[in-house]
Amino acid sequence: MKAVGYIQQQAGLGVEGLIDLELPVPVPGPKDILVRVQAIAINPRDIKMRGSQRASAESPRVLGWDAAGIVEAVGSEVTGFAKGDHVLYAGNMLKPGANAEFHLVDARIAGQVPKGLSFADAASLPLATLTAWGMLFDRLGLPRSGGQGRNLLILGGAGGVATMAIQLARQFTDVTVIASASRPESQAWIRKMGAHHVISHQDDIAAQIKSQKLGPVHWIFSMNTTPASFTAMAAVAAPYGKIGFIDEPEGLDVNLLKPKSLSLHAEAVFTKPIFETDDIGQQRCVLEDVAQKIADGTLQSPVNAHFGTINAENLRRAHQAIESGTSIGKVVLEGF
Amino acid sequence: MKAVGYIQQQAGLGVEGLIDLELPVPVPGPKDILVRVQAIAINPRDIKMRGSQRASAESPRVLGWDAAGIVEAVGSEVTGFAKGDHVLYAGNMLKPGANAEFHLVDARIAGQVPKGLSFADAASLPLATLTAWGMLFDRLGLPRSGGQGRNLLILGGAGGVATMAIQLARQFTDVTVIASASRPESQAWIRKMGAHHVISHQDDIAAQIKSQKLGPVHWIFSMNTTPASFTAMAAVAAPYGKIGFIDEPEGLDVNLLKPKSLSLHAEAVFTKPIFETDDIGQQRCVLEDVAQKIADGTLQSPVNAHFGTINAENLRRAHQAIESGTSIGKVVLEGF
Repeated sequence: MKAVGYIQQQAGLGVEGLIDLELPVPVPGPKDILVRVQAIAINPRDIKMRGSQRASAESPRVLGWDAAGIVEAVGSEVTGFAKGDHVLYAGNMLKPGANAEFHLVDARIAGQVPKGLSFADAASLPLATLTAWGMLFDRLGLPRSGGQGRNLLILGGAGGVATMAIQLARQFTDVTVIASASRPESQAWIRKMGAHHVISHQDDIAAQIKSQKLGPVHWIFSMNTTPASFTAMAAVAAPYGKIGFIDEPEGLDVNLLKPKSLSLHAEAVFTKPIFETDDIGQQRCVLEDVAQKIADGTLQSPVNAHFGTINAENLRRAHQAIESGTSIGKVVLEGF
Repeated sequence: MKAVGYIQQQAGLGVEGLIDLELPVPVPGPKDILVRVQAIAINPRDIKMRGSQRASAESPRVLGWDAAGIVEAVGSEVTGFAKGDHVLYAGNMLKPGANAEFHLVDARIAGQVPKGLSFADAASLPLATLTAWGMLFDRLGLPRSGGQGRNLLILGGAGGVATMAIQLARQFTDVTVIASASRPESQAWIRKMGAHHVISHQDDIAAQIKSQKLGPVHWIFSMNTTPASFTAMAAVAAPYGKIGFIDEPEGLDVNLLKPKSLSLHAEAVFTKPIFETDDIGQQRCVLEDVAQKIADGTLQSPVNAHFGTINAENLRRAHQAIESGTSIGKVVLEGF
């Protein structure tokens, strides 16, 4: 089968390290479904993992943590899926990724693609949706159908996770959503996704919250966590406020949490499949619910760029787009 | 009135900086009660604040965040207290402390001392009890009357907070309590307080949890948070585990929270009085409930050392005892 991956473990491996591969079609284990991949999306996770994992010419590393496709075969213990079903999923970062014609995924973390949703739109959803959902509802504990008059700050620009987090907060809660982006086009995007208030994280965050009377902030979802932004978060937080992060911050002074008894929360989509947690089945429910709402127009697809078919050349361009940090919405590739 | 405090702001001010003072009796504001202090207890907080706050000969700084005494007068808006009532409280670190014959406290954070409880026992409770309660139930979210088969790790030695945290967890939940102390006498103390399992934080924490099959740990309450102990906490934590800290950690790598989607929680007793939070009245309820359970023998008093009357000489010795880091239970002083 066709696939795209890299064959050398090397810190800072450039996009040129992504190459076209010819690999054997994998064989599903008892809990797996074998998926004929139709579309994939790219995430910052792919950039972090490029070159950082063991790889060789004999054992290439395939990335890709967003996929939609058609079930080709199911393992002996799989329930709820049959050959021909259309599925979407994020997968498991410890296993081979989805940038391949055929891919295995644990059936417990896959969802059915609803009628009316394209494979490209479906592939754009899993990692960003599950990350946003897990952070908002499981880690930060936003109240479903509640929270009126309380404030959520999404410090994140206009990437995939912010795109979904803004929409999910608007759809499933009554909180006020303050979101940050720095360029006119990214600010326009997050406003379109439903942010009540838009600020710039290039300017003084605390000063903007204060001058626009947007605080105090009860929940903060940060995709850009630095010592400076963390200081601003602690300053604008309400007592007992919760701060979530999904990036890789360095040098944070956690003592900033103390005066207001704040908390700091990590959310990793892969906790469920890696540790096979009791709630592993939640991903299916969330994916199917959100995919249905995209299909029926209740929520907006995060797809903002289509980079063509799935091959090394197009994947390199997609990696570059994500790596630039200025990408808006989701980048997808489709077909082989 | 007599008081003990210091008159110079100086980093690392030694215990000799604590001196006997003669100060005017304070006048209660509308929400205050004026308390004739009968007993006080010492906390690590006193050590941190000694010399670190603005002070001068004209305006000395009085410390002390644990007190029990008799109501002498009440402010115009105070309800629930009258002259002659016996009260206990932790107070507010931004205001003068309780190491004085008379002291003002916001009535909303004071509790009534139940019959049968000595002033010394009452004074030993507030800061440690409120810290332990706030962390266990509000920050870490331990289930009241539940949690059987789940594990709480208290990394804290045998000081006041650990003493109360172990007892509260045993009294109000069904979780398994693993506690750490390093010396035979401190290990004996935490076992007496009800710890199901006792480990040593001088040895490899993760290895002990693993070899004794005590993990995974769902909640961790740390009073000794270092890069090394934090690494161990992340290693023994269950997915979605919660880690609370009350010390002043430096150099933590918060990315250790990510693989298991963990969270890190700060608890500061003074968040309530400083920010006048909606739940400010909770401290009264907790103090009265726990004090009653000490009075009737359901819980054990944390008092383990009585350092005599409240004067500079005795307070210096008490500070030295707490500063040594080897103090077991609570240190109290009583009378003037």
